[in-house]
Amino acid sequence: MEGHPLALHDVMFIPALVAQASDEQNKKWLRRAQRREIVGCYAQTELGHGSNLRKLETTATYDVSTQEFVLHTPQITSLKWWPGGLGKSSNYAVVVANMIVKEKHLGPHSFLVQLRDEITHQSLKGITVGDIGPKLSFNAIDNGFLGFDNYRIPRTNLLMRHSRVEPDGTYVKPPHAKINYSAMVRVRSHMATGQGNFLAQALTIAVRYSTVRRQGFIESGEQEVKVLDYQTQQHRLFPSIAKAYAFTFAGYETIRLYEQLLKEVDTGNVSLMADLHALTSGLKSVVTHQTAQGIEQARMACGGHGYSQASYISEIFGVAVGGCTYEGENMVMLLQLARYLVKSVEQIKAGESGKLGPLVAYLAVKVDGVDLEKGVEEYMKAFQHVSRLQTWKASEKFLKLLKSGEKREVAWNKSSVELTRASRLHTRLYIAETFKRSVQEVADPRLKEVLTDLLHLHVNYELLDMATYALEDGFLSSSQLDYVRDQLYFYLAKIRPNAVSLVDSWEFSDMQLRSVLGRRDGNVYENLVAWAKASPLNKTDVLPSVEKYLKPMMNSKL
Amino acid sequence: MEGHPLALHDVMFIPALVAQASDEQNKKWLRRAQRREIVGCYAQTELGHGSNLRKLETTATYDVSTQEFVLHTPQITSLKWWPGGLGKSSNYAVVVANMIVKEKHLGPHSFLVQLRDEITHQSLKGITVGDIGPKLSFNAIDNGFLGFDNYRIPRTNLLMRHSRVEPDGTYVKPPHAKINYSAMVRVRSHMATGQGNFLAQALTIAVRYSTVRRQGFIESGEQEVKVLDYQTQQHRLFPSIAKAYAFTFAGYETIRLYEQLLKEVDTGNVSLMADLHALTSGLKSVVTHQTAQGIEQARMACGGHGYSQASYISEIFGVAVGGCTYEGENMVMLLQLARYLVKSVEQIKAGESGKLGPLVAYLAVKVDGVDLEKGVEEYMKAFQHVSRLQTWKASEKFLKLLKSGEKREVAWNKSSVELTRASRLHTRLYIAETFKRSVQEVADPRLKEVLTDLLHLHVNYELLDMATYALEDGFLSSSQLDYVRDQLYFYLAKIRPNAVSLVDSWEFSDMQLRSVLGRRDGNVYENLVAWAKASPLNKTDVLPSVEKYLKPMMNSKL
Repeated sequence: MEGHPLALHDVMFIPALVAQASDEQNKKWLRRAQRREIVGCYAQTELGHGSNLRKLETTATYDVSTQEFVLHTPQITSLKWWPGGLGKSSNYAVVVANMIVKEKHLGPHSFLVQLRDEITHQSLKGITVGDIGPKLSFNAIDNGFLGFDNYRIPRTNLLMRHSRVEPDGTYVKPPHAKINYSAMVRVRSHMATGQGNFLAQALTIAVRYSTVRRQGFIESGEQEVKVLDYQTQQHRLFPSIAKAYAFTFAGYETIRLYEQLLKEVDTGNVSLMADLHALTSGLKSVVTHQTAQGIEQARMACGGHGYSQASYISEIFGVAVGGCTYEGENMVMLLQLARYLVKSVEQIKAGESGKLGPLVAYLAVKVDGVDLEKGVEEYMKAFQHVSRLQTWKASEKFLKLLKSGEKREVAWNKSSVELTRASRLHTRLYIAETFKRSVQEVADPRLKEVLTDLLHLHVNYELLDMATYALEDGFLSSSQLDYVRDQLYFYLAKIRPNAVSLVDSWEFSDMQLRSVLGRRDGNVYENLVAWAKASPLNKTDVLPSVEKYLKPMMNSKL
Repeated sequence: MEGHPLALHDVMFIPALVAQASDEQNKKWLRRAQRREIVGCYAQTELGHGSNLRKLETTATYDVSTQEFVLHTPQITSLKWWPGGLGKSSNYAVVVANMIVKEKHLGPHSFLVQLRDEITHQSLKGITVGDIGPKLSFNAIDNGFLGFDNYRIPRTNLLMRHSRVEPDGTYVKPPHAKINYSAMVRVRSHMATGQGNFLAQALTIAVRYSTVRRQGFIESGEQEVKVLDYQTQQHRLFPSIAKAYAFTFAGYETIRLYEQLLKEVDTGNVSLMADLHALTSGLKSVVTHQTAQGIEQARMACGGHGYSQASYISEIFGVAVGGCTYEGENMVMLLQLARYLVKSVEQIKAGESGKLGPLVAYLAVKVDGVDLEKGVEEYMKAFQHVSRLQTWKASEKFLKLLKSGEKREVAWNKSSVELTRASRLHTRLYIAETFKRSVQEVADPRLKEVLTDLLHLHVNYELLDMATYALEDGFLSSSQLDYVRDQLYFYLAKIRPNAVSLVDSWEFSDMQLRSVLGRRDGNVYENLVAWAKASPLNKTDVLPSVEKYLKPMMNSKL
């Protein structure tokens, strides 16, 4: 759970080579990396720069006389900082540096750089590398720092699948400005399923424990009720079960789109890139945020025992919540998507609705109202409405400020909170629609019925959560909102008998969950006692510190 | 930060003696405890029972022949579990047990129980005591478990300030059924200020770091802007600054009410108890929840470096978030307050509005609309409206189900999510009103101006956050909501120049904050590097594990 030092070798280093190195280069490197003869990582973020790639300070200056790039770290903030596996494990790295050829700054490019001797593993001359210290989690990974002191690498170590520098310094541009972002797009695509998996683990523990824990009474009787029978407990957990499924479905669809993109990019077609880049930015942000919240609620749903490391939920949280920040800070991600949304609004205003991508086409179509009792299709229209309303409002706010003479960045900044709200609503629409499509495709009728209940729960929960936007222009009435509430509580109760099966169906083993509370056999209390007795403090009845600290204090007279 | 093993001695043990032991008893015990000749804790929660006090399983059976109570742990779930300082440090405990006299179950009562020998510190015969193992945080405290095997204590160890058992077994009831809850009420009163303090620490770190960190551009120029200049960053942090102040003010007012209560209880007047018990339940829940969220947002506002232990914010979170669960699980707390709210609604319906406590009197007064531009007073009316609306709706839902023939507990359960929503709104009204009153009392005009800005930010943020309730019955219009949004963004910008002073005014020292990011001198980057270089992994360039694990792998052919 705390991560593996070589994880980034597989997750970032090899995919970066696949996506960015030329076929010829990969003949040299890829096979060696796959055989782990060399171990690598992906070094992009710097101590002083994460989100603003254009301002990365590490330079790679081309020396035409020797046909080498000179890597350099001009100041302390330019140190590479955070890359997983960089500090101690890797002997190579894909390093992103600002490329300078003939005194021209050509922006961030990727280079394969050797950091350590392949035999002795000692760091090479001109390289400063080490571990960045303990973190919230992932402490089995050596996230590292890296500095260069005029460190030379051959010209041919520039990854040249999409752009090239010829021996004489001639630069050949990539076909698409954002082509080198594909590694990030890929990782963000996988994050939705990964986060759904973290959420599912926490929910498995919390739901199982909630059928073991008994507290209080509902129907009178001798025995107290399982806490899962409380509506408040169901409300804490079941909407997150729906989300864990929804995120997984959304992730699968996005990965499929990414694979399609990769094929098209190789044939020179980059039209999907903007769509997918915007979508994965929003998806990554919404999914990680809601996952972290869902895991915390799952932990708290376990009451006091959720706070014990025996629950293991706080460890899952620590790992999952990293996703809110790594691979693109969430607020920055939402604003990237917002840029795409505003552009789409501008296209509509310019009468170019026909050019809109399929995911934003709804922004051009107005709907006056919905009849929610007709089913999930109508909820989708409601989600479209609130996303459209907020996207237009936020875009108009920005465009009006711009028109009033504000500088573009100032106008953008003044509209940015409203813009992030639009991005979230747009993404939640995408998640709901993917969820709906995926459930519709399920063949087994009994499985489909349970998943349809979850889908109903999801759309009612979501619509209530974003009701402000649906009420403010009269799109939804107060009585429609009461209908949504009634449906929400109806589906909580309906899902209750299937709740344990829904989490069991994820098939986590006890070894994977590492949780005393989430044990498949339900023998929680006796195992909590056994777990506690193994605490290091219980080796002796009287701690050594008693003699040293407690007794002198107790015998001193104040 | 990870807590002190003797903290509960001062925070729970001594106050429990003060509140529950008779003057005669305290002559024997209190002075010894204050001099720390004996060290104690407060043992109430059990392995299988936290929230449902009535079902605590530990028994204290009176043996009239020896004038002793026999403490016993009938089964594994009856073990005392969680009390801080119980496992290893304390030699005494105030133990809450179900008292049985002449075969009559008299419910939970408190007893002073010796656990360990005063000289050797060894646990006594009939006592099983130990540590419960590692937790999310507070790992310097030995939260413990405790079991009794027919363990005898003198009759006079029942704490007898409010109820008594005579030598012949005659039971004298306390004057108020909830009199023994006063220890909990006291701690919950102090939690609001304590949590405000945790939130303030996290915000100090995040705000300071946000003026060091530069990323991207707003106004064009050479240098990138401080991230605190981004509206999204201000929106993440400034409403929480307002809340940290609001929670502190609310805490002070509640502590004042508690002290008043304590005096009145001693003179036999317990009328404040129900009011205060309900209020502190809601306050504890809302404050801890919003504090945890605010701290997490503060951490994420520090981007990647927020995830490093160098930020120290995750440690603050770990400690603070415990408050969502200890001293009463939040959902249970909200439902306790809801019980009081529903009772108030029933009083109004019965034509007894005159009997309402001052904090709920507004539930009987309808307001048709507000003119927000007139100022904060009008916002208070809006908060009253949404709380009243939801309290009535949720109460009516419950009462209707009851009338339709549902059992009381079933009707309650089916209404419980809506009831918790009412409790939150009622509590947030109280927090806003206390904030308003406290700011009005500030004498210094310049200080008052800044705090008034924070108050304005708070009421606009809060009203937007609960806008669904204000829109659904047409109380607020869409254009009024837009006004609230405009005001929100106006005050974010207005507070920006004072943001650093607002957090500096809390006067945390660098030693208290333990944060590289939150250093008062702002030298973040060079100290991050120094902190990283001290990482244990950096003792050698090549880790010992390289020889053992990495090299064999790199040289193996797959």
